[in-house]
Amino acid sequence: MSRWEPNARGRLEQAALELYRERGFEQTTVAQIAERAGLTERTFFRYFADKREVLFWGQARLQELIVNTIASQPDRAAPITMVVAAFDAMTATFPQERRELLRQRQVVIAANTELQERESLKLAQLTSAIAEALRQRGVTDPTASLIAETGSAVSKVAYVRWISETDQRTLPQLLRESLDELKVALGS
Amino acid sequence: MSRWEPNARGRLEQAALELYRERGFEQTTVAQIAERAGLTERTFFRYFADKREVLFWGQARLQELIVNTIASQPDRAAPITMVVAAFDAMTATFPQERRELLRQRQVVIAANTELQERESLKLAQLTSAIAEALRQRGVTDPTASLIAETGSAVSKVAYVRWISETDQRTLPQLLRESLDELKVALGS
Repeated sequence: MSRWEPNARGRLEQAALELYRERGFEQTTVAQIAERAGLTERTFFRYFADKREVLFWGQARLQELIVNTIASQPDRAAPITMVVAAFDAMTATFPQERRELLRQRQVVIAANTELQERESLKLAQLTSAIAEALRQRGVTDPTASLIAETGSAVSKVAYVRWISETDQRTLPQLLRESLDELKVALGS
Repeated sequence: MSRWEPNARGRLEQAALELYRERGFEQTTVAQIAERAGLTERTFFRYFADKREVLFWGQARLQELIVNTIASQPDRAAPITMVVAAFDAMTATFPQERRELLRQRQVVIAANTELQERESLKLAQLTSAIAEALRQRGVTDPTASLIAETGSAVSKVAYVRWISETDQRTLPQLLRESLDELKVALGS
């Protein structure tokens, strides 16, 4: 008989990241993750298809959120404004209290080529989805692709700054600063 | 006894791309590639470590070229000017006559998740190398990362336009146009 476990997903995520860092991603088993979290393997599989998904489960939801935000922007908004709005919506899913966990996640991914490849592809797919959402709003190419790629580039830089910063600036602040810095650097 | 074969690398590349498109990347063997090219497997392995390398062999050289070009820019050049110079140097390795082959390569990669992941990671590594080259020239972060990421984004868009365009614009032309269009789209 299964019963409700408080914050099972969070406990499994934390346990998995600890083990991936201690033993390496390849060497860790689902049984070990469940044990460390004080839960069963069955509970693990209620939340994640496999041990890789612990690192990537949020991305489909993130993509949906970004695409929906672009779809709901006012008709006359500039493309870059639509993308900034989308990233603002996105940052709500990255609260300060998740920063330490996401920092650990980044260390695990950096240590494994297969995970790096997956992370890079996920970002490329997210960028394509943003470009498509912009085209749906009537933005033509190459502007749609350029703004999607550049928006992703800026948010990637802001994200890396956010998880590595020791100060308390939030991701939305870092996103805006990064975009302003880019405009300056482009000499515009 | 091995003998010199005229344009062996090019013939193997062409044969491999044909087979990857006809049968799929997974289903193609090195023996089939060599046979199609009228060469031996031994000759294949003189040029490529495995069948995946047929698609990725140029990237280490490309990265070296880009990094060296940034290193040799004048001291007072703006970071974006250094990156544009690097991409200009890069485009010399993408002559118009290779466009059809590179188009085929893109179709093969798009059909296979493992190859997509590798392609995405290679681009991410190239971007990191550019950021590091800029830091070596005294460009501080986040500008180094932002310009490297944005430069890669613009060149990716220009590259996709180049291999999909039916007109005869060159890659350097499309790079410059894309950068100008980005500046406009950023409202700068």
